[in-house]
Amino acid sequence: MRFFSDNAAPACPEVMAALHDANRLETAYDGDSYSARLDDAFSELFETRVTALWVATGTAANSLALAALCPPHGSIVCHRDAHIQNDECGAPEFYTHGAKLVLAEGPGAKVNVETVEAALATIRADVHQVQPHALSITNATEYGLVYTPAEVAALGRLCKERGLGFHMDGARFANAVARLGCAPADLTWRAGLDALSFGFVKNGGMSAEALIFFGDAQVQATLYRRKRAGHLLSKGRFLAAQILAMLEDDVWLRNARSANESAGKLAAAAGERLVTAVEANEIFLKATAEEVASLRAQGFDFYDWGPGEARLVTSWDSEPDHVDALAAAIRAL
Amino acid sequence: MRFFSDNAAPACPEVMAALHDANRLETAYDGDSYSARLDDAFSELFETRVTALWVATGTAANSLALAALCPPHGSIVCHRDAHIQNDECGAPEFYTHGAKLVLAEGPGAKVNVETVEAALATIRADVHQVQPHALSITNATEYGLVYTPAEVAALGRLCKERGLGFHMDGARFANAVARLGCAPADLTWRAGLDALSFGFVKNGGMSAEALIFFGDAQVQATLYRRKRAGHLLSKGRFLAAQILAMLEDDVWLRNARSANESAGKLAAAAGERLVTAVEANEIFLKATAEEVASLRAQGFDFYDWGPGEARLVTSWDSEPDHVDALAAAIRAL
Amino acid sequence: MRFFSDNAAPACPEVMAALHDANRLETAYDGDSYSARLDDAFSELFETRVTALWVATGTAANSLALAALCPPHGSIVCHRDAHIQNDECGAPEFYTHGAKLVLAEGPGAKVNVETVEAALATIRADVHQVQPHALSITNATEYGLVYTPAEVAALGRLCKERGLGFHMDGARFANAVARLGCAPADLTWRAGLDALSFGFVKNGGMSAEALIFFGDAQVQATLYRRKRAGHLLSKGRFLAAQILAMLEDDVWLRNARSANESAGKLAAAAGERLVTAVEANEIFLKATAEEVASLRAQGFDFYDWGPGEARLVTSWDSEPDHVDALAAAIRAL
Amino acid sequence: MRFFSDNAAPACPEVMAALHDANRLETAYDGDSYSARLDDAFSELFETRVTALWVATGTAANSLALAALCPPHGSIVCHRDAHIQNDECGAPEFYTHGAKLVLAEGPGAKVNVETVEAALATIRADVHQVQPHALSITNATEYGLVYTPAEVAALGRLCKERGLGFHMDGARFANAVARLGCAPADLTWRAGLDALSFGFVKNGGMSAEALIFFGDAQVQATLYRRKRAGHLLSKGRFLAAQILAMLEDDVWLRNARSANESAGKLAAAAGERLVTAVEANEIFLKATAEEVASLRAQGFDFYDWGPGEARLVTSWDSEPDHVDALAAAIRAL
Repeated sequence: MRFFSDNAAPACPEVMAALHDANRLETAYDGDSYSARLDDAFSELFETRVTALWVATGTAANSLALAALCPPHGSIVCHRDAHIQNDECGAPEFYTHGAKLVLAEGPGAKVNVETVEAALATIRADVHQVQPHALSITNATEYGLVYTPAEVAALGRLCKERGLGFHMDGARFANAVARLGCAPADLTWRAGLDALSFGFVKNGGMSAEALIFFGDAQVQATLYRRKRAGHLLSKGRFLAAQILAMLEDDVWLRNARSANESAGKLAAAAGERLVTAVEANEIFLKATAEEVASLRAQGFDFYDWGPGEARLVTSWDSEPDHVDALAAAIRAL
Repeated sequence: MRFFSDNAAPACPEVMAALHDANRLETAYDGDSYSARLDDAFSELFETRVTALWVATGTAANSLALAALCPPHGSIVCHRDAHIQNDECGAPEFYTHGAKLVLAEGPGAKVNVETVEAALATIRADVHQVQPHALSITNATEYGLVYTPAEVAALGRLCKERGLGFHMDGARFANAVARLGCAPADLTWRAGLDALSFGFVKNGGMSAEALIFFGDAQVQATLYRRKRAGHLLSKGRFLAAQILAMLEDDVWLRNARSANESAGKLAAAAGERLVTAVEANEIFLKATAEEVASLRAQGFDFYDWGPGEARLVTSWDSEPDHVDALAAAIRAL
Repeated sequence: MRFFSDNAAPACPEVMAALHDANRLETAYDGDSYSARLDDAFSELFETRVTALWVATGTAANSLALAALCPPHGSIVCHRDAHIQNDECGAPEFYTHGAKLVLAEGPGAKVNVETVEAALATIRADVHQVQPHALSITNATEYGLVYTPAEVAALGRLCKERGLGFHMDGARFANAVARLGCAPADLTWRAGLDALSFGFVKNGGMSAEALIFFGDAQVQATLYRRKRAGHLLSKGRFLAAQILAMLEDDVWLRNARSANESAGKLAAAAGERLVTAVEANEIFLKATAEEVASLRAQGFDFYDWGPGEARLVTSWDSEPDHVDALAAAIRAL
Repeated sequence: MRFFSDNAAPACPEVMAALHDANRLETAYDGDSYSARLDDAFSELFETRVTALWVATGTAANSLALAALCPPHGSIVCHRDAHIQNDECGAPEFYTHGAKLVLAEGPGAKVNVETVEAALATIRADVHQVQPHALSITNATEYGLVYTPAEVAALGRLCKERGLGFHMDGARFANAVARLGCAPADLTWRAGLDALSFGFVKNGGMSAEALIFFGDAQVQATLYRRKRAGHLLSKGRFLAAQILAMLEDDVWLRNARSANESAGKLAAAAGERLVTAVEANEIFLKATAEEVASLRAQGFDFYDWGPGEARLVTSWDSEPDHVDALAAAIRAL
């Protein structure tokens, strides 16, 4: 019974069907009829004109976005626990040609206006120091919390004041929207966002993420950077098709709601054991080594998260039986 | 009737079946059971111990290989018409952090010992000039010619003498092996090759290429570089599965033979119109604007290749009826 | 008797005196009173408002200029024999983070509108190819020819049409201006130039070159790039002082005229032996191995320039006796 | 009365004399007779065979050293307050092509085995994280403390155990040696150091620093990297001559001792006001805004160092009268 990672989950049926649909003679790269529909599909979803580029990984989406917003001699503010800082092997530094990440604080991997300002305050405005050019937040965060539209908007205003580009790592954007029940527009461009890495893979996709630009400024350069990074797949239609299939009939939202609901059941069972609130599909649980071993012995697979903690991740396809069994097991600890 | 590009062709049935097979709960990234089998599968094929890394594009495979063989302050010799020079938007420069490409000559995008030595002779051995560190050849070439094992071995000896790493862009390696009927080992490590970009996408794959290292020297660094470039897909099992499916029962060779045979029929029809010999699945044809228009009017789709020339590419799935029709149309010009 | 390189020449007396003048307590980096006068001094010289940054080498000046005009995914057109292509060990690629140099033709290392257009014509305007962003010319060229204001202006118009930045490597800008007798403005911004590497070291300086921007667009970023490249010297006043000393009373022009006149004498003596016209301070001479040996036996030091050719370079301080002796020796060959 | 920065001090008489001595016809770049003597001169000083490269700035020396010890996908551990982290505008990231700096703790900008191990412990040994490749310490530190030979050796052993390269930013190496009275060898290679940025500019030089390698492994590549970075000055003899002049008769030590002694006088006067011990030529003083204003009103120039603190820096040429006056003024506060 797998609660290990949403990356380990299968692709959802709609995605598999879309691959078959797209498996026909087509133009190469992104000249195909699927890729051609992406901008419209996302523009409708976001209620404004956007540009959408497919890439194969969230790391590529994040890094291309950051390279669009920050020059090599600049820096990007992010949370100390951000994926771009800890889990991408320096991809932001590679794509930006050596920009620095400036680390901000906040519980649950969430920054706020105060902590971002504190991080900015450490930077002298002279030529000896790397100057800040962008802010990047993760929604839902690496600890399963969500930023509300109001929270994002407060950060968006700060970015505007300080002349910073604003990026959201949305590897679990769907889980955040599902939780908040808000319009995607409210959580993004209406709140001042410039670029969004819109994740599909953790949410039932196979190999496609979307990089969304809410303005035109950096789109052309990013098309070249994507090719240059080896991320312009020659049969790109298979990526576009996955994304379109998940946008259609709100599959992306349905999948995310399902994962969130499973997480909610586990959270309810965990009660006082929770390390942070559960607002998306990740549960961080206080548990002794014995308790962890006991859960494993009952067939549950998950990550240790340092001593005394465990991370459980639900997926679009988490089986209700497994979830209920785990919830019961947690209660019985 | 599509003779536009093998990139435009569908994925073959074995690949589609493999995706379904791999669509189950698994470990993320490259920790899965499919990825774990890659080294063995390629080691068997190459009759020696190799390391194989999946990536999503040939550009990524080429660039990672070149970054492994050449430092930022070095240069890579390649043909003036090489894909890495003309069609990857500077990806080698991005991944190597600014190495230079030194261009060698030769008909049909094929270099030889003399032309490589001529290119090397332009480089003074002093600190003011970028020094050569690698040779990269494409087999089959960008003009559809193949290097024989003896030709590769001659270049391999030159590389050894000059202390150069040796890379092969094998986007159409299958077509070369199918043409030559040789052991893959003879065309690669036995001929002195260090790294091979083994292409699958043009040959019936969907989104997986293999980067093969014939020695251990640069494997560890390349694992980090792949992640850093955003090419460690979180559901990597779907890439490994595609490759394994094409290795099994020599699907890769069968597909390539089929494409080569279709090309052979067109070549026979073209006769004196051929710009170069047809040794793989690309045909370069002399044709006037009127002749080109006439072929298009009959429903054949293909690339113009400068004034007075056209490029026709056959695929693993080129329909015999279409091939025969095109052959007849060429004869009738 | 040294005709080896103007890099080998001493610093001129005005420069040495300026170092003593600047050797006092001052503010560090570029906050000093000498550095503060640079913009005004060059603005007066160029009859327009310019920004001037000191750096220690021409390679740094060139590379910072190119990085200002061309993104990592772009390319720079230059002559096949340009210093930036052949003698800077890939510095342009380092500073631009991997931009490509596209090579244009022309006798005497001089490009023209036709050869630049021919180079541009090889580049397809699609995402698979690196797109041109800048043109860089060397004046005087690597073969001692000069571009006239009209020639520069023709290239400037081409740059404007094509949206290219326009840079001049002026390692021997002084020699060009001395030859042409024109206003520096006519050879630069009035002809459409965006950035100039204004050389002082070959012309009697010790360790200071000036990077001139004729517009403001890239100045701020270049200040950061200079620091980031380790080229913001902590006692920068010594660089500024050298430059100011050479601008005062037109020392730069006087030195260059002297070197040009010495070269003129040698050119007159060489007559038919000249490989190209002598328009600055470099003479390229046809000479057999025996003739070369004979000149060396008479105490003249210079570079071989491939088989059958020799390069003689005069300096601001070439001794008239030595020049006359060499002229006589050439006549006597 | 300037206590602002040792960067603001003049060049010492020996250096000025050396510039005149070197102002003669010579070979260009580093082929001259001065540059040729550097390796021997430093090898004698360090009692072992070393390679010495001149560069114009400490930032260049540091960054070339780090690029030699750390690949683009690696990281370098340094103190949170290190110059390479805070005052070089990302030069290490530029030269290493995007390596990360991992920040260690410790009072007075000094790391120790425990704090370095704590920093290393935050790094998971998997492909998703940038792995550590080097440690860089500053001696004397940014807060004017020195590492003893035993302290360096303890870090050297840690580096050896963990496979890390070991670099010392010795912008004030002379001040550290002067303080410790130890053999330069004991503070460097005998303690496990791989590379040293040996500073001369702050200590009476004009524009020359030395990068010392205690092994051969990375020397060749660094020669190319130096050129590529625009740091191979064409009249390099003027840099070599400065360094040789300061090595001769231990001018470097005499200058450093003088600065340290001046600092010692101020430290004695400061007593309880000292923020940290004074072991080199920097004094960090607790002082109210009024006290700071009072010192300034008496003609003393220095840096504010955050609220409630001031930084005073003595130089090789600090005038005894000024030092005494400042000491008295501090006592009188």
